[in-house]
Amino acid sequence: MTQVGVNGYGTIGKRVADAVTAQPDMELAGVAKTRPNFEAETATRKGYPLYAAVPERADQFGEAGLDIAGEVDELVAAADVIVDCTPSGIGAENRSLYREHDTPAIFQGGEDADVADVSFNARANYENAVGADSARVVSCNTTGLSRILAPLDETYGVEKARVTLVRRGGDPGQTGRGPIDDILPDPVTIPSHHGPDVNTIFPDLNIDTLGMKVPATLMHTHSVNVTLESDATAAAVRDLFADETRLFQIPADADIDGAGKLKEFAHDAGRPRGDLWENCIWSESITVEERDLYLFQAIHQESDVVPENIDAVRALTGTADAAESMATTADAMGVGIDYGR
Amino acid sequence: MTQVGVNGYGTIGKRVADAVTAQPDMELAGVAKTRPNFEAETATRKGYPLYAAVPERADQFGEAGLDIAGEVDELVAAADVIVDCTPSGIGAENRSLYREHDTPAIFQGGEDADVADVSFNARANYENAVGADSARVVSCNTTGLSRILAPLDETYGVEKARVTLVRRGGDPGQTGRGPIDDILPDPVTIPSHHGPDVNTIFPDLNIDTLGMKVPATLMHTHSVNVTLESDATAAAVRDLFADETRLFQIPADADIDGAGKLKEFAHDAGRPRGDLWENCIWSESITVEERDLYLFQAIHQESDVVPENIDAVRALTGTADAAESMATTADAMGVGIDYGR
Repeated sequence: MTQVGVNGYGTIGKRVADAVTAQPDMELAGVAKTRPNFEAETATRKGYPLYAAVPERADQFGEAGLDIAGEVDELVAAADVIVDCTPSGIGAENRSLYREHDTPAIFQGGEDADVADVSFNARANYENAVGADSARVVSCNTTGLSRILAPLDETYGVEKARVTLVRRGGDPGQTGRGPIDDILPDPVTIPSHHGPDVNTIFPDLNIDTLGMKVPATLMHTHSVNVTLESDATAAAVRDLFADETRLFQIPADADIDGAGKLKEFAHDAGRPRGDLWENCIWSESITVEERDLYLFQAIHQESDVVPENIDAVRALTGTADAAESMATTADAMGVGIDYGR
Repeated sequence: MTQVGVNGYGTIGKRVADAVTAQPDMELAGVAKTRPNFEAETATRKGYPLYAAVPERADQFGEAGLDIAGEVDELVAAADVIVDCTPSGIGAENRSLYREHDTPAIFQGGEDADVADVSFNARANYENAVGADSARVVSCNTTGLSRILAPLDETYGVEKARVTLVRRGGDPGQTGRGPIDDILPDPVTIPSHHGPDVNTIFPDLNIDTLGMKVPATLMHTHSVNVTLESDATAAAVRDLFADETRLFQIPADADIDGAGKLKEFAHDAGRPRGDLWENCIWSESITVEERDLYLFQAIHQESDVVPENIDAVRALTGTADAAESMATTADAMGVGIDYGR
């Protein structure tokens, strides 16, 4: 059993902790948190060993009535692998702590690519992380793009990808974020960071990305164009994607027109927190004009990287190959949507 | 003096009426309105002759204390040109009325292309409408695309255009519209109607468009990709666009990050209703990768077609050529933004 510690118990960390608990070959060594907020309370309620991420604030937990198992360095020492789910930039600061204890570490996509030995997407480059000391699971958007580019590149070759990412302004709980009533080019310069980030997974792929922010909270939505190197049809692309567990094709007759109904569907299906771990691709939108493939996909920024983090644990520890790991992750968490079946 | 009648006095109609009044070679014969609402009240206050668009409802105006000059057929008979600004689909129903009186008519982009002899954009195909019986001013988004595609095609040739239009969910006053907190592929099928609509102006241009709707009200925003036929640089494209009065390049140091600040700028500049008749292109976003040009532009859905309607009047009556008409329109209305000069 691989002992997994989770440092940072916010949007991503709490989901990774739940996912670790569900795996047959992993045990949750504990979670580290900076403050005794509602999330720390829930961790305790679930029986997750709770560690103080900042030693100077360790006392606050007791004062809030929450027992802690120790401080974060003890968690790092006890774990076989640590998954760093702290806010962007903090992961890099934590790197020395993980090295001190020789604990392999997984970072999130908010960190710069050089934070880890390899950038990681299970479908595209699992093998690169096998036996590495550290891996960075690329961001939600880069994960979403990698999952479709891998099968397209393998089957047709990708001449060039051009993607407009229409990004939610903030997560549902991020009440201080915006925009309020606007459509912002963000960044206004081209490319956005997503294209170069995709190149950390596919170094030779020709891709330009443009980012915009809008006043929505539920999911990002991508307008995707991929110029393929060889001829394809929309039907063949649908068949190709149907083989990918982490791609959900929204049927035309499902009456799902946006992220609101996607989340409602996820809740109705009993998904924890209404999470959608899969890319949600509108089947009707898959269109091929000459060699230009177009599609719309929605990406759940809070959860699509969670199965990738689980796979990264197995890659670093060398305990499974890509196909085995992705299948185990899917079985344990329930990844994959067999709509109407 | 060309006598211009405006049938329909809503978002577009009231702006066209104001613009007609500002022209040195036109007179406003009157405006027709279905209901005595706040807009009808304002028309009366401005001294615009007010006609009842629906004879059965003519009495309602008097009951609301508003004098009318007559019914819509009298306006059509009195006008040299009628500009139909009624809601989508109603224009087609009005066509027989205009034909009955042999009054040349201008329709809006919400109508099907076959409503008129020609689809019209002043910069791209003014000559096609000279002497025609009717013209359809293409929609706000198609106008915005035509204005950049015309100079690009003339200078570099356009191999293919790929555009994602992120559309405001509704106008500020359309309180019944949405989405509320979502990003909708709309339509989910590709292409959206914009590509085929651009082809009513540029029949041979290769263009694919994708449409999305978001919870914003102020302006549409386009993510534009144009693969040029010959080499270009971002600087050369900026110079090319600088010659176009109806293209405003937002300077990098203006601190204008979205439509909110654009509208604030328009209000500060004393623009009526805060209107932005020009495409608003973020200068920083103009980027050339290989032969792929990228840019972001915001399009004010309520007003960018107004100068086009004025030019269409001169085209139908054959009273000026394209350059003369566009210059007269600009002088009379104040079209064109000389930022920092």
